[in-house]
Amino acid sequence: MLNVALLGAGRIGQVHARSMIANKDSRLVAVADVMAEAARTLAASVGAEARSVEDILADASIDAVLIATSTDTHSDLIERATAAGKAVLCEKPVDLSLERALRCQAAVAGSGKPVMIGFNRRFDPNFAALKGALDAGEIGRPELLSITSFDPAPPPVSYIKVSGGLFRDMMIHDFDMACWIMGGAPAKVTAVGSSIVDPEIGAAGDVDTAAVTLSWDDGRIAVIKNSRRAGYGYDQRVELLGSKGLLSARNVLENTVEKITTNGASSAKPVYFFLERYMRAYEAEWTAFVASLASGGTVPVTLRDGIAALALAEAATQSAKSGEAVAVTPQMLGA
Amino acid sequence: MLNVALLGAGRIGQVHARSMIANKDSRLVAVADVMAEAARTLAASVGAEARSVEDILADASIDAVLIATSTDTHSDLIERATAAGKAVLCEKPVDLSLERALRCQAAVAGSGKPVMIGFNRRFDPNFAALKGALDAGEIGRPELLSITSFDPAPPPVSYIKVSGGLFRDMMIHDFDMACWIMGGAPAKVTAVGSSIVDPEIGAAGDVDTAAVTLSWDDGRIAVIKNSRRAGYGYDQRVELLGSKGLLSARNVLENTVEKITTNGASSAKPVYFFLERYMRAYEAEWTAFVASLASGGTVPVTLRDGIAALALAEAATQSAKSGEAVAVTPQMLGA
Amino acid sequence: MLNVALLGAGRIGQVHARSMIANKDSRLVAVADVMAEAARTLAASVGAEARSVEDILADASIDAVLIATSTDTHSDLIERATAAGKAVLCEKPVDLSLERALRCQAAVAGSGKPVMIGFNRRFDPNFAALKGALDAGEIGRPELLSITSFDPAPPPVSYIKVSGGLFRDMMIHDFDMACWIMGGAPAKVTAVGSSIVDPEIGAAGDVDTAAVTLSWDDGRIAVIKNSRRAGYGYDQRVELLGSKGLLSARNVLENTVEKITTNGASSAKPVYFFLERYMRAYEAEWTAFVASLASGGTVPVTLRDGIAALALAEAATQSAKSGEAVAVTPQMLGA
Amino acid sequence: MLNVALLGAGRIGQVHARSMIANKDSRLVAVADVMAEAARTLAASVGAEARSVEDILADASIDAVLIATSTDTHSDLIERATAAGKAVLCEKPVDLSLERALRCQAAVAGSGKPVMIGFNRRFDPNFAALKGALDAGEIGRPELLSITSFDPAPPPVSYIKVSGGLFRDMMIHDFDMACWIMGGAPAKVTAVGSSIVDPEIGAAGDVDTAAVTLSWDDGRIAVIKNSRRAGYGYDQRVELLGSKGLLSARNVLENTVEKITTNGASSAKPVYFFLERYMRAYEAEWTAFVASLASGGTVPVTLRDGIAALALAEAATQSAKSGEAVAVTPQMLGA
Repeated sequence: MLNVALLGAGRIGQVHARSMIANKDSRLVAVADVMAEAARTLAASVGAEARSVEDILADASIDAVLIATSTDTHSDLIERATAAGKAVLCEKPVDLSLERALRCQAAVAGSGKPVMIGFNRRFDPNFAALKGALDAGEIGRPELLSITSFDPAPPPVSYIKVSGGLFRDMMIHDFDMACWIMGGAPAKVTAVGSSIVDPEIGAAGDVDTAAVTLSWDDGRIAVIKNSRRAGYGYDQRVELLGSKGLLSARNVLENTVEKITTNGASSAKPVYFFLERYMRAYEAEWTAFVASLASGGTVPVTLRDGIAALALAEAATQSAKSGEAVAVTPQMLGA
Repeated sequence: MLNVALLGAGRIGQVHARSMIANKDSRLVAVADVMAEAARTLAASVGAEARSVEDILADASIDAVLIATSTDTHSDLIERATAAGKAVLCEKPVDLSLERALRCQAAVAGSGKPVMIGFNRRFDPNFAALKGALDAGEIGRPELLSITSFDPAPPPVSYIKVSGGLFRDMMIHDFDMACWIMGGAPAKVTAVGSSIVDPEIGAAGDVDTAAVTLSWDDGRIAVIKNSRRAGYGYDQRVELLGSKGLLSARNVLENTVEKITTNGASSAKPVYFFLERYMRAYEAEWTAFVASLASGGTVPVTLRDGIAALALAEAATQSAKSGEAVAVTPQMLGA
Repeated sequence: MLNVALLGAGRIGQVHARSMIANKDSRLVAVADVMAEAARTLAASVGAEARSVEDILADASIDAVLIATSTDTHSDLIERATAAGKAVLCEKPVDLSLERALRCQAAVAGSGKPVMIGFNRRFDPNFAALKGALDAGEIGRPELLSITSFDPAPPPVSYIKVSGGLFRDMMIHDFDMACWIMGGAPAKVTAVGSSIVDPEIGAAGDVDTAAVTLSWDDGRIAVIKNSRRAGYGYDQRVELLGSKGLLSARNVLENTVEKITTNGASSAKPVYFFLERYMRAYEAEWTAFVASLASGGTVPVTLRDGIAALALAEAATQSAKSGEAVAVTPQMLGA
Repeated sequence: MLNVALLGAGRIGQVHARSMIANKDSRLVAVADVMAEAARTLAASVGAEARSVEDILADASIDAVLIATSTDTHSDLIERATAAGKAVLCEKPVDLSLERALRCQAAVAGSGKPVMIGFNRRFDPNFAALKGALDAGEIGRPELLSITSFDPAPPPVSYIKVSGGLFRDMMIHDFDMACWIMGGAPAKVTAVGSSIVDPEIGAAGDVDTAAVTLSWDDGRIAVIKNSRRAGYGYDQRVELLGSKGLLSARNVLENTVEKITTNGASSAKPVYFFLERYMRAYEAEWTAFVASLASGGTVPVTLRDGIAALALAEAATQSAKSGEAVAVTPQMLGA
């Protein structure tokens, strides 16, 4: 039985809390939040204590923490928690600054404590089935990957201003998916972006629609398409052409009903809310973290993976500005 | 807050227990089972007490019971629980004997207590969406209904011998679906059945494959197809032709991945286990029961509905033997 | 090279004429019709001569005739053409009267000339692929067949009055499909029908909506559903549960475009017109007829097949009236 | 009635010949080919004369020519035919050299004769339905277009050496599709390509796998993915995100049969051969050409359209080499 604490009692912290209490091999004993009231409310509903971060890190009976605080605190908390001997599962991204994330990596290296980054999509049953089929050799070697990732509606412009931009905030998931599926980071990044959904987003210095091409030295190519606004739902698809066939993971729909009338056939939309799509992925993510600690194995998504995704986001941001392909160097990818 | 008790701690009782503790408006306070150990284990895992049925019925603080015991005890327990002033949610079928179920209905009539029958499929989000579209007039008036309901694998022959037969045990769900969708019981039943899946089932006096046609006096027709063994999964579909179009509810698949190779395109099977398909339905069923008690409204599936399904099962059993259409009389349908 | 003549220059005759001139192994030399003008027009457009039936049958250079005249002339023309030494492809049904069709069969038996009946659906590439997969053992042995066959709109009531009724006019195709797929005629027929689409059809003594169950002595079952009016298109589907899996042939759609908006996902309807669906089937049917004559093999759909379908139509008509299962006797199925 | 001649009796010329003789408003009177025997054989099978190009161009009774000769003769023949007063439908591409194509455009400008370029995919019923829905405003304004175009198998390396490269030979279709759907040429082209399918293709100086991003000044983006080898069939899809929804045109499959067994669900592959997919498009293309001449309207695909596609191919070829975005100038797009 693993004693665990949750740092951050906001929306995503509440999501994780559900998985933490459902898991039979972990016990959620404490919740911390800068908003004391939020910590208290969440703690009460899950039978845990509201405590300060300091308290939690100082408590030797706590084995691991899940960091679900604001992004600017991630690196600090990862460093402090590992220094205090805790295993860590930290929400993505590691940091908005690649440089800071690399320093974090250096700092935790000595601790020997596992740090897992919360790229939940790897644990979606559909994407996991696609990856499993690829690894089983069902379509030969991968050649051309395509990731479509559209949000239903853009966040407020106020959020966008502090988000680090579409590449670091939204496409970071897809960069991780690409590295995971292809088995490593690409050599080059070419990006095109625009703010066609909402000119306010452009005025805030960001893009809302983007296409990024990743290329590997052996000729493999990946294309990622992002839009901040699909309108109809949360559109999350992956398609991979291999030397012996094509794999695709389609959307999860609201229901299975089809109607045919003189106006045509109609069926359900993709689910709209990210939790409808990914709740099972969050559960599986937590299960995988707990299982890796129990077995003493490697966590399935490493800090290095988190840094690779961040490096690609950085490269894409540059390429979208310069119009030139940006090389991904070993330095950018960390230790 | 509703205080509730669970009678029956077997497989289906355990399923219901999950929904009961997840619901914020009900508190599961007691569990009973003829196997005292089963009651204790389940009670412990959900924070309830293991008690006897007598104790539970005598406890005035308990508002409602969920009956998930063996079928032959349903009528008795419904009568005793309502007499003791409890609201009841009872698993299907009401009874294997239509005559006994009709007596049960007469007995509870005076109690004024609500009795809901657990036809969980009405609460499946897909079938509910189909019914909602019909009720919204999206395909005009219903004309020709088709229900496909195949189990992945037959139960042991020992079970079949005490099951009441395919029409009472398995197709009972589909009879209820047909009455629910069409808005009332049909006038006639025509049934054909055979034991082609397993001759042992035939030797036990039952069929494993059947097609039943229901017809209403206004010309509406429903066709139900059952097989005890689809092999590939739990195949549960509904299709309805209306005067202005067609509605269909397709299967729930294991995942959304598709593969295309020189061998063709392949995708996931329907989910295999009934809980994968209907867990959300069980949750919604319990929620609806609790909500109807809270509002003082009618339960969404009545004892009369349970009797109608049983009457159709009886008629189908007769028709499959005689080769003749069997009329459904008001007497068979109860009060 | 086969010299062939077409008897009947109406709508379906014109359809066949297209296939006849497209086939490289047959030459359409003559067209006959009771409406001389119709024969002349069609003949001119395909480079053939308009001639009388007498002339055509007396012309020893003509090897085969395709009979596409009105149903009441089929038996006579089959008898005369085979007596004159011609091979025959005759449109379905053989006759509206089973008794007349049986006499026809007896009459042609001595001629030794092949008579093929035009059940075009066997030659639809989709249904043929389903049958091919079954025959290749892909789903084990057949157990439960389901045929859905809905017309887009009912014919005029004036036509219905002379059509022989839904079972002989429309479901005859599905009876043949069932016998073809299952590999022989069933032992019993149970039918339910109503006129819910249009009371005028009921007033004319026919049904417009029907469900028929066929059963074989070894336990196999088939269900056929017909409606004269689906509204949205020509709905033609087959589904077969076997001991090792399920095969289904879905509809042919107008196009492959899908749209997703906040209102849901929408896609194309089934094609509306029977020729859009079955033009390729008519071509393949003629090709198969010509090929069987060239090879001296058996025609792929025999007069006996035509009689079996007619016998099932007769049995269904009786069963729909009596409410009882009707046995299919060897006498009904002909020689 | 339009008198037309066909220049080129090779594979694609034979395809066009079928459409030309099926059209009731055009009469195919002559066929020319550098291989006299090929011209004679094709001419005989369609009831036309085999004649020389000189003869055909000098014949005042011939209104239009379809040019289906080798690419290096296109510009010359367009110039000569228009100078001789003929309307022209010329196979894509106009030329492998953008400079030569621009001179051709200048040369024909004075003739006043219409020149249509054979981008057949615009006439595919599925893509046409997608474009129709867009133009009808069904998804608002276009934002992010995605074109997937995979050939089943690469051509011989000997062909690739003279093909002008993947961007000019294969992706040229997709460049035209992008301009057609988006309503004009983009401002910038970014391309990435590799030879991962076959190193021999790379050794011949070409790529076999490529991703190209087009961007418009107003923020619209298009992504085109090409592979010379999908293996499983001819994979041709278009997907367009608009401000109010998503449109997609999926593949045409070999048949509509689905099978479900314990191994999963399987269905048909996309059709393999380009003619299975595009025969109807070729017919509709010819019909549109003839109709535009009859009405005196503009041809639906102009020489300018052909030049735009070629300019994008040129830009993509450059960008794939330099790793930089290439601007598309008015000069490149011609008059």
